[in-house]
Amino acid sequence: MFDNKEKTNIEQLGEFGLIDHLTKNIKITQKSTLKGIGDDAAVLDFEGKKVLVSTDMLLEGIHFDLAYTPLKHLGYKAVQVNLSDIYAMNGTASQVTVSIGLSSRFPLEAIEELYEGIYLACEKYNVDLIGGDTTSSKQGLTISVTAIGYADEKDIVYRNGAHEGDLICVSGDLGGAYTGLQLLEREKLIFLENPNIQPDLEGKDYIVERQLKPEARRDIVELLKSIEVKPTAMIDISDGLASEILHICRQSDKGCNLYEDKIPLDPMTYETAREFNLDPTICALSGGEDYELLFTVKQADYDKIKFKMDITIIGYITEPAAGCNLITKAGNVHPLKAQGWNAFPPAP
Amino acid sequence: MFDNKEKTNIEQLGEFGLIDHLTKNIKITQKSTLKGIGDDAAVLDFEGKKVLVSTDMLLEGIHFDLAYTPLKHLGYKAVQVNLSDIYAMNGTASQVTVSIGLSSRFPLEAIEELYEGIYLACEKYNVDLIGGDTTSSKQGLTISVTAIGYADEKDIVYRNGAHEGDLICVSGDLGGAYTGLQLLEREKLIFLENPNIQPDLEGKDYIVERQLKPEARRDIVELLKSIEVKPTAMIDISDGLASEILHICRQSDKGCNLYEDKIPLDPMTYETAREFNLDPTICALSGGEDYELLFTVKQADYDKIKFKMDITIIGYITEPAAGCNLITKAGNVHPLKAQGWNAFPPAP
Repeated sequence: MFDNKEKTNIEQLGEFGLIDHLTKNIKITQKSTLKGIGDDAAVLDFEGKKVLVSTDMLLEGIHFDLAYTPLKHLGYKAVQVNLSDIYAMNGTASQVTVSIGLSSRFPLEAIEELYEGIYLACEKYNVDLIGGDTTSSKQGLTISVTAIGYADEKDIVYRNGAHEGDLICVSGDLGGAYTGLQLLEREKLIFLENPNIQPDLEGKDYIVERQLKPEARRDIVELLKSIEVKPTAMIDISDGLASEILHICRQSDKGCNLYEDKIPLDPMTYETAREFNLDPTICALSGGEDYELLFTVKQADYDKIKFKMDITIIGYITEPAAGCNLITKAGNVHPLKAQGWNAFPPAP
Repeated sequence: MFDNKEKTNIEQLGEFGLIDHLTKNIKITQKSTLKGIGDDAAVLDFEGKKVLVSTDMLLEGIHFDLAYTPLKHLGYKAVQVNLSDIYAMNGTASQVTVSIGLSSRFPLEAIEELYEGIYLACEKYNVDLIGGDTTSSKQGLTISVTAIGYADEKDIVYRNGAHEGDLICVSGDLGGAYTGLQLLEREKLIFLENPNIQPDLEGKDYIVERQLKPEARRDIVELLKSIEVKPTAMIDISDGLASEILHICRQSDKGCNLYEDKIPLDPMTYETAREFNLDPTICALSGGEDYELLFTVKQADYDKIKFKMDITIIGYITEPAAGCNLITKAGNVHPLKAQGWNAFPPAP
């Protein structure tokens, strides 16, 4: 990714020097941030609103591969995956803390690139970086982000509020991040075998971006607010559609019917899945990392959402005894299984 | 630390199984926690109080050595070092999130031990565990904790409020964690050379505990409240007295005089430093990890604190032009330098 010639060693700066260097240009933009970086703790004021907190850790070799992940994209993604959890509560994200552990193989310029992505995400999504920790690691890069947001109590949407007959909706399209990952992994193998061959990702920008630079769906939360639809349950799709709808059904004590032919797939996702001899539906159900929102709405809200771009109705909630099912294009009924991405894969 | 015979592989449980297993007995005790683990984000209510947020990351091989750190102590310490930052704002800690990255060399029983320490710290300090992330790592153990607390705006103490003439106070005693670490490192080397020799830590419990199982000084915050003393500036001592007083002076734009003979040292710290041919004062100034509170108070508060056990007045704040000085026992004046623990030590 980068060579260490003429680069600045972070040891020369020391911990405080590095933190000062990386944070000197931070601007606080959120009214709720009274004090950001620079004391023992940040001080926030939510003026009576409820506070939302979520956290996620990304580890090199597990969640990302620096062979094909630009550091700027990685910083951007680390923030996005956390904001996504705040939006999935129907809240407004307002602050993040970012802790980074990195080995001495990273020069200052690499860390600056990572922070560029972090700052870009913060700026674009109106979020303040209010704290964190930067430390050396024996090996590898670790990023831990905590996102903080707020909402009026009446607006918060939990996973457990789905009722029988509610419509199951999903934003955007699914399976793109997973097929993008397949593509990046293939090109990496080709490159390792023959470093003279340049990666062939032409025309695949969309799914490669879905994997490397996802966008949390703040716009969907705002859209639903503007048309006065409050979902009955909501979750973000980090582990795949199947795993997430099972969370909603289990926590709401309900069943569901999902229709395979309704699951939104981008044509590029479809084609690429086929290229890899993968079933595009399986990519959507189990691929994960799409960071779209999966939510349920009352049937009475059908008219408000039926023609909304970027929202697709893919099924409905049933009584719990009916189970959680996928109705295939051929009309067969298959019980849904969570085959989402597993952070603890069995040893090979 | 542990052998893997007859131990449970975490792969068998999977991510959700592991999280369920580790969190099934969590009890929410804080009124401010409306919803803890189990949704996309936790939901908190601080009822008009200001919210305090701080975060710290601990990495194996950098911040701890599992050769002599029991996992239960490590879990306990990971929470304490974060609570300490909330107390250093004169606040009440109320929630933590804990993210853990661990390699497959850790069996379930090891993680349970780590969580035992986390839960013990939460219980003892009235803090709810409200979220986190548990994931595999390629190598080593990573722990990232975010602590959340609250305070009335009028009670919050920043680093930048010290005034000329304010008394500089410190809780407890200093240098113990550092001398404890020297002892543990020595015994580790002896053990590596000859595994039949058992570690000789007899009579050294206090300083070994200072290193392995520090206690954040919630009691000092409560004491100061009870005697109606609000510090003018405060910070916790994680990097050593010198580094921390320099933070207060720089952010308050002031100087200081510290008196070497006033710096509180436990006799065991003193003796052990001597055994290692270390200057006990240097251990206190630069050792770090004591997690005591360093704070300044108005001279008018002198009578309220002068006889308080566990608070020592070690100097006073001066005009900035006078600089930051240590007055030695011999009466010499030395400029203070931050030689605190550096998370980025130069390569050997």
